[in-house]
Amino acid sequence: MAGNSFGNLFKITTFGESHGEALGGIIDGCPAGITIDFDAIQNEMQRRKPGQSSIVTQRKEEDEVQFLSGLFEGKTTGTPIGFIIPNTNQKSDDYSHIKDTYRPSHADYVYEKKYGIRDYRGGGRSSARETASRVVAGAVAKQVIPDIKINAFVSSVGEIFMDKPYQDLDFSKIESNPVRCPDEVSAAKMETYIKEIKKQGDTVGGTVTCVIQNVPIGLGEPVFDKLHAELGKAMLSINAVHGFEYGGGFCSAKIKGSDHNDSFNPDGTTKSNLSGGIQGGISNGMDIYFRVAFKPVATLLQKQEVLTNKGEIIEQQGKGRHDPCVVPRAVPIVEAMAALVITDYFLLNKIYQTK
Amino acid sequence: MAGNSFGNLFKITTFGESHGEALGGIIDGCPAGITIDFDAIQNEMQRRKPGQSSIVTQRKEEDEVQFLSGLFEGKTTGTPIGFIIPNTNQKSDDYSHIKDTYRPSHADYVYEKKYGIRDYRGGGRSSARETASRVVAGAVAKQVIPDIKINAFVSSVGEIFMDKPYQDLDFSKIESNPVRCPDEVSAAKMETYIKEIKKQGDTVGGTVTCVIQNVPIGLGEPVFDKLHAELGKAMLSINAVHGFEYGGGFCSAKIKGSDHNDSFNPDGTTKSNLSGGIQGGISNGMDIYFRVAFKPVATLLQKQEVLTNKGEIIEQQGKGRHDPCVVPRAVPIVEAMAALVITDYFLLNKIYQTK
Amino acid sequence: MAGNSFGNLFKITTFGESHGEALGGIIDGCPAGITIDFDAIQNEMQRRKPGQSSIVTQRKEEDEVQFLSGLFEGKTTGTPIGFIIPNTNQKSDDYSHIKDTYRPSHADYVYEKKYGIRDYRGGGRSSARETASRVVAGAVAKQVIPDIKINAFVSSVGEIFMDKPYQDLDFSKIESNPVRCPDEVSAAKMETYIKEIKKQGDTVGGTVTCVIQNVPIGLGEPVFDKLHAELGKAMLSINAVHGFEYGGGFCSAKIKGSDHNDSFNPDGTTKSNLSGGIQGGISNGMDIYFRVAFKPVATLLQKQEVLTNKGEIIEQQGKGRHDPCVVPRAVPIVEAMAALVITDYFLLNKIYQTK
Amino acid sequence: MAGNSFGNLFKITTFGESHGEALGGIIDGCPAGITIDFDAIQNEMQRRKPGQSSIVTQRKEEDEVQFLSGLFEGKTTGTPIGFIIPNTNQKSDDYSHIKDTYRPSHADYVYEKKYGIRDYRGGGRSSARETASRVVAGAVAKQVIPDIKINAFVSSVGEIFMDKPYQDLDFSKIESNPVRCPDEVSAAKMETYIKEIKKQGDTVGGTVTCVIQNVPIGLGEPVFDKLHAELGKAMLSINAVHGFEYGGGFCSAKIKGSDHNDSFNPDGTTKSNLSGGIQGGISNGMDIYFRVAFKPVATLLQKQEVLTNKGEIIEQQGKGRHDPCVVPRAVPIVEAMAALVITDYFLLNKIYQTK
Repeated sequence: MAGNSFGNLFKITTFGESHGEALGGIIDGCPAGITIDFDAIQNEMQRRKPGQSSIVTQRKEEDEVQFLSGLFEGKTTGTPIGFIIPNTNQKSDDYSHIKDTYRPSHADYVYEKKYGIRDYRGGGRSSARETASRVVAGAVAKQVIPDIKINAFVSSVGEIFMDKPYQDLDFSKIESNPVRCPDEVSAAKMETYIKEIKKQGDTVGGTVTCVIQNVPIGLGEPVFDKLHAELGKAMLSINAVHGFEYGGGFCSAKIKGSDHNDSFNPDGTTKSNLSGGIQGGISNGMDIYFRVAFKPVATLLQKQEVLTNKGEIIEQQGKGRHDPCVVPRAVPIVEAMAALVITDYFLLNKIYQTK
Repeated sequence: MAGNSFGNLFKITTFGESHGEALGGIIDGCPAGITIDFDAIQNEMQRRKPGQSSIVTQRKEEDEVQFLSGLFEGKTTGTPIGFIIPNTNQKSDDYSHIKDTYRPSHADYVYEKKYGIRDYRGGGRSSARETASRVVAGAVAKQVIPDIKINAFVSSVGEIFMDKPYQDLDFSKIESNPVRCPDEVSAAKMETYIKEIKKQGDTVGGTVTCVIQNVPIGLGEPVFDKLHAELGKAMLSINAVHGFEYGGGFCSAKIKGSDHNDSFNPDGTTKSNLSGGIQGGISNGMDIYFRVAFKPVATLLQKQEVLTNKGEIIEQQGKGRHDPCVVPRAVPIVEAMAALVITDYFLLNKIYQTK
Repeated sequence: MAGNSFGNLFKITTFGESHGEALGGIIDGCPAGITIDFDAIQNEMQRRKPGQSSIVTQRKEEDEVQFLSGLFEGKTTGTPIGFIIPNTNQKSDDYSHIKDTYRPSHADYVYEKKYGIRDYRGGGRSSARETASRVVAGAVAKQVIPDIKINAFVSSVGEIFMDKPYQDLDFSKIESNPVRCPDEVSAAKMETYIKEIKKQGDTVGGTVTCVIQNVPIGLGEPVFDKLHAELGKAMLSINAVHGFEYGGGFCSAKIKGSDHNDSFNPDGTTKSNLSGGIQGGISNGMDIYFRVAFKPVATLLQKQEVLTNKGEIIEQQGKGRHDPCVVPRAVPIVEAMAALVITDYFLLNKIYQTK
Repeated sequence: MAGNSFGNLFKITTFGESHGEALGGIIDGCPAGITIDFDAIQNEMQRRKPGQSSIVTQRKEEDEVQFLSGLFEGKTTGTPIGFIIPNTNQKSDDYSHIKDTYRPSHADYVYEKKYGIRDYRGGGRSSARETASRVVAGAVAKQVIPDIKINAFVSSVGEIFMDKPYQDLDFSKIESNPVRCPDEVSAAKMETYIKEIKKQGDTVGGTVTCVIQNVPIGLGEPVFDKLHAELGKAMLSINAVHGFEYGGGFCSAKIKGSDHNDSFNPDGTTKSNLSGGIQGGISNGMDIYFRVAFKPVATLLQKQEVLTNKGEIIEQQGKGRHDPCVVPRAVPIVEAMAALVITDYFLLNKIYQTK
C-alpha cells in the first residue's frame, strides 16, 4: 500500500535509503527447489553498479548481496528470501549542502511536503540506489523462468537513435561496449556524445528497448491486469522514466487498421507483430517488445537555482559523483523489472490455465 | 489477482461480457456521506455510449446504470456500491460467424488458449464494452474529489495532430464537436478524415491527452506505486492502448538536463513543467498531464484473413457496427481511469501525511 | 481494504443491504471449464433461507440467484461471475421504529459513529442477510473442489450439547431435522428448547462443528496465512460468531504434550488427530475439523432498553420476524466460508508445490 | 500471497529461519515523524527471549535488533523500516538427528510434502523463532498508537486457571513473576506446575488473555474484515495456537439473548460488555478482550516415535533446549500481533471516517 512492494505471487518488497546502513528486500513466493546461481546474480549487480566505465558515475559501490534466508544447501525452499546490500561507500558529506534546499526536478520538495521529514543524504529513499534491490530480485526471477529470454539495450541517447529493428541485432554484443547498445556504430556515437555532455557538466536522456522471447501463450490477466499494463507500471516505476510503449506503440496511433492488424499463420503465430506479442493483455507467443523513455538525470555539475526551505531561490553548484546519462546502467534494471512481471504472471497462469 | 479489480482504497471490481445479461461492478471504499449526482454519472455514460454521432459506431446501447446498494437517501453510506448495466441491444447473431475463427489482432485466439473456452459473442469479456463499468466508477470517483479537475481530449487522429499546448485550449469546447478535440480547426480535419476512413471500411488510431488540475501536493507512493506508474497502468489497461507518456514523455529522452529541469519559484511552484506535475512519483501541485496512444480498432468492415480453430486460414468479411476511430469515445474512459487513480491516492495520502 | 472481499486467488466481493434493491457479488478467479450445477447452488440457498421450518424466522425471502456473467453454455469461462439476489420480501416499515434508536448488541450505534450515516432498515449492511452472497460463492467453490467433502452441523444449542465424536455421526442425517444436528436424540432436545425460547420472545446461542475430509496434503501458507488462521478469520467474519477452535481447541491448552502429540503411522497418517488435520498451518491429509461459537441473536421480541440518537434511554418492543436461534441456518454459511478458504488455498498450492 | 506479510496499511513482511544467518522484516506504511523509543523495542525483545528464567528454554539468543532504514535522526520518515536480528547462538548440530525424520505434531512432514525440500535445522521457517520479527514490528506499532493500552497475561497453564475477571487485576504485576500471570497466587501454582512438567521432560499448554483499552469507536471494517476476525487471524497465526474467543466467547453460545445483550448507558457506553468491545465487527469504545489457547509444545525431552523419510517408525529422544510451557513467552507475541491489527485498522479508519 505504501508502495514498496511489487508483484502478486512472486513478490518483492524493498527497503533502504541511499546513505543508510543497507538496502535490501524480501522475495516472497519464489517456488521451492530451484538451485540458485549466485554468480549470475552478482553479475547483474555489476551491470547496474556505478563506476563501471568512464561514461558512468565514478562512485564505487560494492553492491555485494548477502542472502539471509530462504535458501538451504544452495536451493530455494519456498520460504521468503531476505537479502541485504550494505552501503559501504557513502559520502554523506557530499550532501550536507542540500539539507535545507530542494533541487529542481528532484523529489526533495515533494518528500518534505508529503512526510514533513526527509533523509536528504543522496536523495534518501528516492535515490536510484533503491534499484539495486530490484536487480537482485530480478536476477532470482530470471532463474525461475530460465527458458524465457529477456534482453534490454540502449536504443537512443539524446537525439542519437539506433534505428535497426531488433531482429537485426546481435544481443550478445550488448555488453561489448559501455553504452550497452548492440549496434557498434551507434554505440560509438552515443559514447562520444555522452563524454561531451559529461564535460559540460550536463546530462542527457535516452531510451531502452527490451525484447522478451520464448514466452508461453496465455500470460496476462484480462481487463485491469493486462500483461502490458503491468509491464508499463513496472517500467514507469523506475526512476527517471517518462514514457512506455509496446508493440507499435505511439506509431500505432497514426496507422490504419488494415495496415496494423497482424495476420495469422496456420500455426497461430502472426506474420507481422505490431501487437508486440500481446493481444487483449495476454501473451500470444510472439516476441514481446517495448521501449522505455528516460529523462536526463536531474543532478548537474553546474550551477543551478534551488529553492530553500525558507522560500528563497539561491544558486547552488552540483557536487558529487553522478551519471551524465543513466540509460546504460538502466539496462539491467529494465530487464530485472521485466523478469519480475513475467515470473509473477507465469506463476499466476498456472492456476487459471485449463490444462 | 484475476485482473478484474483496480485500486487500493477506492477499489472497483467489474464483471460482464459484451453479450451477457448485464455488465456491472462493485465500488468498494467510497467514503460515506457524499451526495451523489446521478445525472452527472448518466452524462458520463452518454459520452462513452455508441451511436452518439455519425463518426462512431451506430450500435444503440442504452447503458442505463442501476445502483443496487451503498446509497441511502441519495448519499453514500460507506458500504459497497453495487451497480449493473443491463445489456439490452445485443445482436449476438452478428457474431455467430466468428464462433470457430480467430480474428487478427483481437483477443479471440489468446482467450481460447488461456482458458480453453471463450464467449465469442462480441469479444465476450475482452470487448471494450467492459469500459462502461469503469465510466460509472470514475463518475462516482470524480464526486469524491470535486476540487480536482480532470479533462481529457483527442490530440491526434492518424497523422492529424492538434499541436497546441494544452494551456492554449478552452476545455469547455471539448464536447462541442463529435471528435472531442477542443481546437475546432483540428477537430474539423479529424472528423473529415474519420468519415473517409469509415467509407473505406477501415479504422485508424489516435491519441488522447489528459490534464489533471488542482491536485494537492503529496499524492503518490514512492518506489513501485509512483503516481505516474499507476496512471500509466490505468491507461494501458484500456482496450487498444499501446503507449503512455507523461510530462516531457518520449521527448524528455532527447533533451539535456540543463534544458529539462524545472526551476522553482519561491512559492514551490515551478517555472516550467516538464515533470508533468510529478516528481519522484509524487504530485508537486503543478498540472499533471499525459498522453495515451490508441491503436486502430481491429475489426474492419473489409475482408480479412482469419484463423479457424482447425488451423486453416480463410477470408472473412467483417460485420456488425464498429467504430472507425475509437478515440472520441475513449475520452471519458481516460478521464474515468484518471479519476479512479487520483481518488485512490487521495484517500491513501490521508494516512501517511503528517498533518 | 474496506472489508467486502474475501480470498486471494478465488475471491468473492459482495454488496447489498438488507432492504436495498438487491444483494450480490462477484466471484473472481474461478477456473475455466467447470460445468456449473445451478440446482446445487439453489439448494444451498434453500438451506440458508429464512422460513424453512417452525424454529427459524418466518420471513419469506425467495433468494433466487441470477447469474449475470462469467458463464457460457453452462460452463465457467475464467472471467468474473457476477450475480444478484433481488430483495423481494422486505418490509421496511418494520424498521421505522429504529430510525433514531440504537439497539443493544447490534451494530446500529457503531455504524452511525463510524460513517456518520446508516441505512437503518433491517440493519442495512450489518444484517446477516449479506451471508446469502457468501452461500452463492461457497456453492460455486464446492464445485471447484468436488473431491473434498465439507460437512457442518449443529453441535450445541444453549446448554444442550451433542457430545458424540464426529466420527460416530452419519452426516447424511444432518438435513433430516430442522436443527441440522445429525444425532436425532440431541436434535429433538434442541428443537424443543428452541421452541420454548421462541415462545419467551427470547433467543439462544449455539455452536456449529465443521469437518473437511479428503483434503490434499500441503494446503496452507506458513507464518501469517496458516490454513487454520484463514479458516478462523472466515468463521469469525460470520455475523454473531464469538469463538473459533480447531483440532483439540481450547482443550489442547489443558493437556500435556505427551498426551497431545499425534504419532505417525508409516504412511504419514497419524494415529490420533488433535492437530485437526493441520500442522504448522499446512494440511497433513487428515480430517480438518473445527468448532464455531455463535452468540444469541440480539433482536428479542421483548421489551428492551435502547439508546436514542439524543442520548436518551427508552424502552422499545422488538418487532419483525427473527430467528430464536441462528445456528441451524448458520450451517450452510459455515460450509460456504470453509469452501471459499479451501478452494482459495487449493489454487494457491498449485503454484508453490514442487510437482 | 505466500503468507509472510500481515496487515493492509501498516504492513509487516518477515523472513528468516531458525538457524539461518538472520531473521528480519520490513515494516511498510509506518507514518512519518514518530520518534522511536529503541529501548522500548529492545525491552519487548527481552520479554520474548528464551533463557529469561528457569521455567523457559535456556537457549541464549541475543535477539539484538538492527534497524537498517526508514529512520532519520531517530524519527520515522514514512519509508519502509528494514531490520534484522542476527542468529548468533544457533547450535545446528542439535538438529542433525532430525534430518531424515519427521517429529510428531511438528511441521517437518508437511513442509517436506509441500515444498519437496526443508531446512530441518530447528524447524526452519516453522520455528517460533520467527515471532521475534513480529515482536519488533509490534513494538513499533505500539508507538504509533500510544494512547491505546494493550496488556496480555497468562490466564491458565494446563488445568490451573486464574479465574478473576480482568477488571480485578493489576496489570503492573504481569512482569512481576516468570509466568506473567498478574494474580500472584495463581502465578505461584502455575510456576510450580511448569517446573514439575519440565522435570518429566514433558510440556503443557495454556491460555493467554489480552485486554485492549482506550480504543476509539469505529475501528474495524464490516463484513469480511471485522475487527475481531482480523484479531482472530492474527492470534491463530502464532505458533501452537488452537483457539480464539473474544467477549463472551464460547460461553456466549450457551446463553440467552436477554442475558447476553449489553444495555446502553446514555453516553453510548454499555453496562455489561459481553460484546468484548466490538459490535458488528467495529469497536464501540469499550474494552476489547479476548483469549487465546496454546497447545503444549510438541518437542518433548522424552523418547517419542517419529517417522523416517523411508516410511519407518523409529524411537527418538528429544534433544536441545526447549520450553516446557510456551505461554509466558507468548505474552509479548500476543501483544505484538494485537498492536499490529489495531494500528492497521486505526490508520484505515482515518480514510472512511466522516470527520
